[in-house]
Amino acid sequence: MGRKRKNMTYRVDLNSDLGESFGTYTLGMDEEVLSHISSANVACGWHAGDAETMAKTVRLAKEKGVAVGAHPGFPDLVGFGRRKMTISPAEAKAYIQYQLGALMAFAQAEGLSVQHVKPHGALYNMSAVDMNLALAICEGIAAVDKNIIFMGLAGSCHMEAAKQAGLRAAGEVFADRGYQADGTLVPRGKPGDMVTDEDVAVNRVLCMVKEGVVEAVDGTLVPVKADTVCIHGDNPHAVAFAAKLRAALESEGVEIANLEKMFA
Amino acid sequence: MGRKRKNMTYRVDLNSDLGESFGTYTLGMDEEVLSHISSANVACGWHAGDAETMAKTVRLAKEKGVAVGAHPGFPDLVGFGRRKMTISPAEAKAYIQYQLGALMAFAQAEGLSVQHVKPHGALYNMSAVDMNLALAICEGIAAVDKNIIFMGLAGSCHMEAAKQAGLRAAGEVFADRGYQADGTLVPRGKPGDMVTDEDVAVNRVLCMVKEGVVEAVDGTLVPVKADTVCIHGDNPHAVAFAAKLRAALESEGVEIANLEKMFA
Amino acid sequence: MGRKRKNMTYRVDLNSDLGESFGTYTLGMDEEVLSHISSANVACGWHAGDAETMAKTVRLAKEKGVAVGAHPGFPDLVGFGRRKMTISPAEAKAYIQYQLGALMAFAQAEGLSVQHVKPHGALYNMSAVDMNLALAICEGIAAVDKNIIFMGLAGSCHMEAAKQAGLRAAGEVFADRGYQADGTLVPRGKPGDMVTDEDVAVNRVLCMVKEGVVEAVDGTLVPVKADTVCIHGDNPHAVAFAAKLRAALESEGVEIANLEKMFA
Amino acid sequence: MGRKRKNMTYRVDLNSDLGESFGTYTLGMDEEVLSHISSANVACGWHAGDAETMAKTVRLAKEKGVAVGAHPGFPDLVGFGRRKMTISPAEAKAYIQYQLGALMAFAQAEGLSVQHVKPHGALYNMSAVDMNLALAICEGIAAVDKNIIFMGLAGSCHMEAAKQAGLRAAGEVFADRGYQADGTLVPRGKPGDMVTDEDVAVNRVLCMVKEGVVEAVDGTLVPVKADTVCIHGDNPHAVAFAAKLRAALESEGVEIANLEKMFA
Repeated sequence: MGRKRKNMTYRVDLNSDLGESFGTYTLGMDEEVLSHISSANVACGWHAGDAETMAKTVRLAKEKGVAVGAHPGFPDLVGFGRRKMTISPAEAKAYIQYQLGALMAFAQAEGLSVQHVKPHGALYNMSAVDMNLALAICEGIAAVDKNIIFMGLAGSCHMEAAKQAGLRAAGEVFADRGYQADGTLVPRGKPGDMVTDEDVAVNRVLCMVKEGVVEAVDGTLVPVKADTVCIHGDNPHAVAFAAKLRAALESEGVEIANLEKMFA
Repeated sequence: MGRKRKNMTYRVDLNSDLGESFGTYTLGMDEEVLSHISSANVACGWHAGDAETMAKTVRLAKEKGVAVGAHPGFPDLVGFGRRKMTISPAEAKAYIQYQLGALMAFAQAEGLSVQHVKPHGALYNMSAVDMNLALAICEGIAAVDKNIIFMGLAGSCHMEAAKQAGLRAAGEVFADRGYQADGTLVPRGKPGDMVTDEDVAVNRVLCMVKEGVVEAVDGTLVPVKADTVCIHGDNPHAVAFAAKLRAALESEGVEIANLEKMFA
Repeated sequence: MGRKRKNMTYRVDLNSDLGESFGTYTLGMDEEVLSHISSANVACGWHAGDAETMAKTVRLAKEKGVAVGAHPGFPDLVGFGRRKMTISPAEAKAYIQYQLGALMAFAQAEGLSVQHVKPHGALYNMSAVDMNLALAICEGIAAVDKNIIFMGLAGSCHMEAAKQAGLRAAGEVFADRGYQADGTLVPRGKPGDMVTDEDVAVNRVLCMVKEGVVEAVDGTLVPVKADTVCIHGDNPHAVAFAAKLRAALESEGVEIANLEKMFA
Repeated sequence: MGRKRKNMTYRVDLNSDLGESFGTYTLGMDEEVLSHISSANVACGWHAGDAETMAKTVRLAKEKGVAVGAHPGFPDLVGFGRRKMTISPAEAKAYIQYQLGALMAFAQAEGLSVQHVKPHGALYNMSAVDMNLALAICEGIAAVDKNIIFMGLAGSCHMEAAKQAGLRAAGEVFADRGYQADGTLVPRGKPGDMVTDEDVAVNRVLCMVKEGVVEAVDGTLVPVKADTVCIHGDNPHAVAFAAKLRAALESEGVEIANLEKMFA
């Protein structure tokens, strides 16, 4: 659940995937969504993004006071990192370190530190259910810098792997996705996979953050550690929802805080 | 010239391009040449090298007590970074920072710092004669970390650009290349471009290091700042020459020291 | 100039660069612009486009009755093929053949032939003024299939190289660009580089097609072989202009015909 | 089994993966192995090979009288196409067509036709057991040219998919691999996976070609359609075995013939 502070207020981080433009190709409404989030997951050039886009994205995030994290993915630009690839733990570790390092340089050039790492796409999904892969990723990060926070699927292998590797773990929840009784997401394409009603979505997030529970598709109340909420920024509708969600959280006394602040 | 110490001894760095294998493709006798050098220029995955190779190369360098530097190149794997590309200063800056950062992560994972940056191939050659490009590169490095040393062609734009950017500059000389009266290298393919006699090559290096001069093709004695000597490691013959050169330098009282030590 | 037929009508081809989307990134209004052109230059995956996009673009062109050609570029996706690269004639030849072949497969799968090849971006610009490069490209195409038409800058090395290689050459002209007295384009950024008034642009094309001349920035009337007019399709405004230009040409008795038809 | 001709002789094809060098990286003893084989599987630039290497490989094959085929793989150069990727049938189809087309251009430039397609690495292994993937590949080939022969794992989905797509299917067998009772290969790492004794390997091939059976690890005699034998050419030992195997086949009255000849 969102961190409850001594004075009985709550805190949650809002994160979004940014810097996904590539060369002449633009993607995402980065400037707009940056006004509503506290942590930016910056693509690192393997599944999306390029060096100049990374530099620009870090600068933008700094201007908006948003913390930056690495969003490393598979080496699959044409597939946007969304296709499963069978890689070894050693490969996973090296791939994470490479991409994390690239972002570190751009962050340092702006006087920032990399706050967190959140794997992208298929690498996120695969490592959420594969402890070996999750551990390789977390150990790769920890070897570089133990102060970096691992952002992963709340309740998944991600959380345990981060802990084992000595990293702080931030549990990510989704406003627009259905949950199963075991705390995992309803697979896309199955009944109840998406929450389409915006008000319902906002209320679910409030419940996850303040009560630490989410109602699963079968009606079960499932405990969930909601440190950060995934925000989409790929279209005007998504950005409007981000604004709406943030306003609702704040009006309910939930402070929007980046992970570093939350875990301080 | 090589740094003369108070007690009248000399120092010089020996550097070599390493980590140029890629995936299943192997290139270079990295382990062998590491025994003879003091600074390793590690390919960063754009013109050669890959994430796992970088991790392995940094580990090997650490074991051998050799300092590591980034060897960034153009995004041109099939051309091995040897083909000219027209890129903007902003692109050059971002490309250097990306590749430098990637190596920083692997170095940090081994408890090392990145000692230096030496541009690769066409990026080296182009920036040696293009002050804007050289400045973009050096400013890119300085923005990330002012403690990093810039290794470039002795007497070229590289040295001035590094200075302007607030970086320490290490002048690189070549044992096997002819020089012109203005201190530049004789272009490949022109008479006197290569020094093929090994004894002559060794003596030229000794002269550059101890006297700070090199004899140009027209007989002129040209002043040269020889902080580091480029060592090849792509074949057994090259490795044997590296051993021979190092032995000659040491028997003449020249200490082999990496750049950090030299500039300390 | 546009081909004048026996019955005193004129013909010209309208071409546009298509299939420039890549993976999840979309670019260009391909479907819309296909309604107004007769020849499509299909990106071949090196500077833009990907295998699935190529397949889809060829299908779309077939549906609209538009001829397809290969639009090969430098291996520079992040630079969109717009950056100069120094490649050898042997490399140029192989690069063209590779990309042409890839498109041939998608064309064959739809029962089509590849009508033409038009180099993209920096490869177009460089080969327009470099006879060796232009020849390497044209000889590469001719070795694969002498029936393929080479589309290049009217009045440039392109035309002569195609002829020497035994290929038919289609001269491309631009509605929105200024010309110099020697028939070359006014470089971008120089006064008179762009023709911004749409009516002026339309009249210039009519004059090039029907009279075979264009007025240069200095007022000179320059002869020009206008076989095909470059049409942009990257924004609604460009597509609207394409429709306007086509309507003007047709109302002036100019038949829009693809290159194969024109050269038949 | 190998094709038995009317006059009671036998025929078999010997194939090898060639053209796997990339840029400055060299791999494989292509020239040497070409002396011993009848069909060359040419890498198409996605998992190995590059445009110039393809051109050179096709020329070499032509000089040696060896038929050429496309050897398409996953877009995974760093993994050499050996890592599983989850791709859709539409992607598989487009990927095969792209790579096949590229080779078609180089073949046409030498006056040759592409004889066959054999998927590479993980794409081979995955499609051997996944009928949907195998069909997508075979339909992709058939859409381009029904005369192309599909080379795949004898007894696998490959054979049936080729048939359904209207392609001729060539069954590939392995001299150095163990078979299971169901005709599949013993997975690498399991007992009996490799046949290390050269004389045993030669005899197994003779038996597969002349008798149409192979002895599985459990002693069962398994029927197998041995149209082509996989030959390795990555080291001197492998090349020597290729020569030995070919000599043994010929001395036993087996004619070495490429697939086109065999299926004529």
